[in-house]
Amino acid sequence: MTSDILQRLGEVIASRHGGDPDKSYVARLLARGEDAVLKKIGEEATEVVMAAKDRDRARIIAEFADLWFHSLIALEHFGLSAADVLAELGRREGLSGLDEKAARKDAERAVREDARSPAEGGRAASTPGRSG
Amino acid sequence: MTSDILQRLGEVIASRHGGDPDKSYVARLLARGEDAVLKKIGEEATEVVMAAKDRDRARIIAEFADLWFHSLIALEHFGLSAADVLAELGRREGLSGLDEKAARKDAERAVREDARSPAEGGRAASTPGRSG
Amino acid sequence: MTSDILQRLGEVIASRHGGDPDKSYVARLLARGEDAVLKKIGEEATEVVMAAKDRDRARIIAEFADLWFHSLIALEHFGLSAADVLAELGRREGLSGLDEKAARKDAERAVREDARSPAEGGRAASTPGRSG
Amino acid sequence: MTSDILQRLGEVIASRHGGDPDKSYVARLLARGEDAVLKKIGEEATEVVMAAKDRDRARIIAEFADLWFHSLIALEHFGLSAADVLAELGRREGLSGLDEKAARKDAERAVREDARSPAEGGRAASTPGRSG
Repeated sequence: MTSDILQRLGEVIASRHGGDPDKSYVARLLARGEDAVLKKIGEEATEVVMAAKDRDRARIIAEFADLWFHSLIALEHFGLSAADVLAELGRREGLSGLDEKAARKDAERAVREDARSPAEGGRAASTPGRSG
Repeated sequence: MTSDILQRLGEVIASRHGGDPDKSYVARLLARGEDAVLKKIGEEATEVVMAAKDRDRARIIAEFADLWFHSLIALEHFGLSAADVLAELGRREGLSGLDEKAARKDAERAVREDARSPAEGGRAASTPGRSG
Repeated sequence: MTSDILQRLGEVIASRHGGDPDKSYVARLLARGEDAVLKKIGEEATEVVMAAKDRDRARIIAEFADLWFHSLIALEHFGLSAADVLAELGRREGLSGLDEKAARKDAERAVREDARSPAEGGRAASTPGRSG
Repeated sequence: MTSDILQRLGEVIASRHGGDPDKSYVARLLARGEDAVLKKIGEEATEVVMAAKDRDRARIIAEFADLWFHSLIALEHFGLSAADVLAELGRREGLSGLDEKAARKDAERAVREDARSPAEGGRAASTPGRSG
């Protein structure tokens, strides 16, 4: 299915890491170092917001593609990959229904809460302080 | 493979859309409207950057999970899905080697450029003004 | 006092608006349009966060200077100025002690609350839901 | 003139630093630590961008007021103040016309370039790679 594109792109990015900066945007960005890589996350997030406010659906898709692509580059910089992030999302989903004491934050609880089937009830939803 | 988690999460999010805000974080966030949804993109991007600067790998993974999860919520708000974004990434990858005139921006060219096999050459890489 | 630098810079920026893009960074950025101007706000905010995480005081100062400078350019784009923002901050400070019903958000209440002299008491501080 | 509001607000913020978190938003935010303070910079920058895309002038002013107010809180966290940022902006303005070798980045050069009177020439403007 198409979602394996994240894995394929991750492999392409890894293969460019350390390569000739004159031959690859990815090699060039990684060669510029951590702050250059991270700055792109802030930039692309801002571009997503602007496209969204314009309600330009093609641009929203394109900007999210940019944001996720640069996410993959940042993950590569730290020796991580999309698989790590997807496994974390899967782990949260799998935790649904469990009564984890020290849920680290809203979003994590949110994945579990919303992954839980309606039949299992929405008890966790009444936990206060979820709105952050 | 694990990347189908994006599709599954997207389906969960879609099923919560319009649901009882008291029972689901996702329903609650979507009910708060566009700006609340988009603000989370900016917030989570900032948290990714902070975790990255701390070089805390577990937190980097967790914050990217948050960023991608809230990306899915924003896509849902606009009637879009992860499949649209992944298809766009695949389209760019597929364009590699083609001589598309009006490449829309660096990142798009970057996906194509870096997806291109070394044997096909890196001619596009010498295009000036790619660093943006 | 040095804070009049904001006014002077605003005047310089206004004088460049519509000028030759080849002769001025400000003219060039404004000529590129709204999204280019706004993207800089997201970029410079990200750079502030990165400098802060590095605890590099000289860079923190420099990045805040960049953020405020680009704030002035964005204000100019919308026909506004630093004086408008400073007046708003002064208005909030002046409201301290008043019992304004529809305080628009945390930060606004925060300015008033914290501007209030200790002698006047911190009653507003006990208002719930301030943490957002 | 109204710009002294930044200094007055900075003094109020400094006086709240270390105070009772139950009595002051500023004390509470500073007590939550560096990441909480920095996250607000990312959040408020995103809110500026959203208000700007809505072309809602009153909200643009209010969101810039929020961004600058939280800038003052972040500066306080690092033992800095608005005076440091304003002095840096003044320094850049004062450098105009000088031929500083290692100009650290676009925005810095931009202040100098645009502060320079047209009579002094716009030579620096022809430096390539300014558009970043």
